[in-house]
Amino acid sequence: MKQLILIRHGESEWNKLNLFTGWTDVDLTEAGRKEAYEAGVLLKKEGYRPQMCYTSYLKRAVRTLNQVLEAMDMDYLPVEKSWRLNEKSYGAIQGLNKADTAAKYGDEQVLLWRRSFDVQPPALDLHDERSPRMDPRYAELSDSEIPLTESLKDTIARLMPYYKDVILKAFDRYSSVMVVAHGNSLRGIVKELRGMTNDEIIKFNIPTAVPYIFEFNDNMELQKHYFLGDEEEIRKKMESVANQAKKK
Amino acid sequence: MKQLILIRHGESEWNKLNLFTGWTDVDLTEAGRKEAYEAGVLLKKEGYRPQMCYTSYLKRAVRTLNQVLEAMDMDYLPVEKSWRLNEKSYGAIQGLNKADTAAKYGDEQVLLWRRSFDVQPPALDLHDERSPRMDPRYAELSDSEIPLTESLKDTIARLMPYYKDVILKAFDRYSSVMVVAHGNSLRGIVKELRGMTNDEIIKFNIPTAVPYIFEFNDNMELQKHYFLGDEEEIRKKMESVANQAKKK
Repeated sequence: MKQLILIRHGESEWNKLNLFTGWTDVDLTEAGRKEAYEAGVLLKKEGYRPQMCYTSYLKRAVRTLNQVLEAMDMDYLPVEKSWRLNEKSYGAIQGLNKADTAAKYGDEQVLLWRRSFDVQPPALDLHDERSPRMDPRYAELSDSEIPLTESLKDTIARLMPYYKDVILKAFDRYSSVMVVAHGNSLRGIVKELRGMTNDEIIKFNIPTAVPYIFEFNDNMELQKHYFLGDEEEIRKKMESVANQAKKK
Repeated sequence: MKQLILIRHGESEWNKLNLFTGWTDVDLTEAGRKEAYEAGVLLKKEGYRPQMCYTSYLKRAVRTLNQVLEAMDMDYLPVEKSWRLNEKSYGAIQGLNKADTAAKYGDEQVLLWRRSFDVQPPALDLHDERSPRMDPRYAELSDSEIPLTESLKDTIARLMPYYKDVILKAFDRYSSVMVVAHGNSLRGIVKELRGMTNDEIIKFNIPTAVPYIFEFNDNMELQKHYFLGDEEEIRKKMESVANQAKKK
């Protein structure tokens, strides 16, 4: 039996302020750290023992993973970080309030930017201070790799090489692997694993800090998948994510 | 110019209780987390920008590194963990109080176990529950690698392959590398770098959570080394470590 554990980072400062975040590197809130820690407590209690961890270059994911590992008492686990697991880039609307943006451009336009499969938000200017090109951590990226904006389709396209060549390959060596990342990078993995259509994945909301478990047989054929935790609480978390960009 | 940043973990629960710790996996105290975070604040303020990090399998070191990276706002840095950076094993005296042990065996015997170069404390029994053999994180180690007790000489012997083949090799790719580890594993590195004798390194006390900087020219010849921080505070920290095992 093989097992993949996906976890979306806990509540971030900008989730709370209802701002478009994308590649902006904002911290977790105290509530976000707490729900991350609790995810680790639950995993430990239920006997999950991952052997290898992956996360993004963004601190809300790294710190969620740190909290999970602290709670599991498994700080010693190997961790690999990659920009390919980063959140979808929201381009020039990063830092804008979701409700304000909806009021200005209309719910429909904002829903397209957030939830269409292949419509990109307006792009960042190459020399915008918010551009990843200005950030030394992305110095290794070529110009064509640095996203100035992304649709979900773009996000999945840059995620997939890492998912296939690194994360799936890890199962040659490990039976349980954990990935802590973001709403849209995790959508890419879930779409692939469950064979979902573009429409289905757009409507699928991954709750924050809830372990999402995929189990495979030894040929890596998917046997089952489930969220770990209280069903009612998970449902509430999924709805709260879905409603974020509605006008106030 | 190349740069190696060494940091000894912050105060641990058992430092505070004055117990022999070794490979026992105890947490930092709140004070220990705080001094670790402050080390990161200082590094950031002074403009240090490590590109690669190494730490041990023990949570007091991993969590110290996490605090440092949070404070530096560099959570995205790659981190590699190795059991070879673990603290010296104190064998069968792990978990015993330092002052009690000194009262029972005499200051001189305890000082030999703590501060001689090649005298080992009494060994753990192979099946002692404190043996690393019982711990899944060390499953990859062969019987001859699993220490049941160690002198400083033994600690240095198992550290050196990792120091030479991994940490020093990292300078082929990076100009600044950070290592967060333990009093005795760091002694091994400092002894090697400074060409200290066995006697000199035994008497040398590395203060907790103080960045110890080594600067090299491009041929990796040592140019200078210094502790980063307030001189008086560092001196106090070094004395406090030296006095730990005295009878009360």
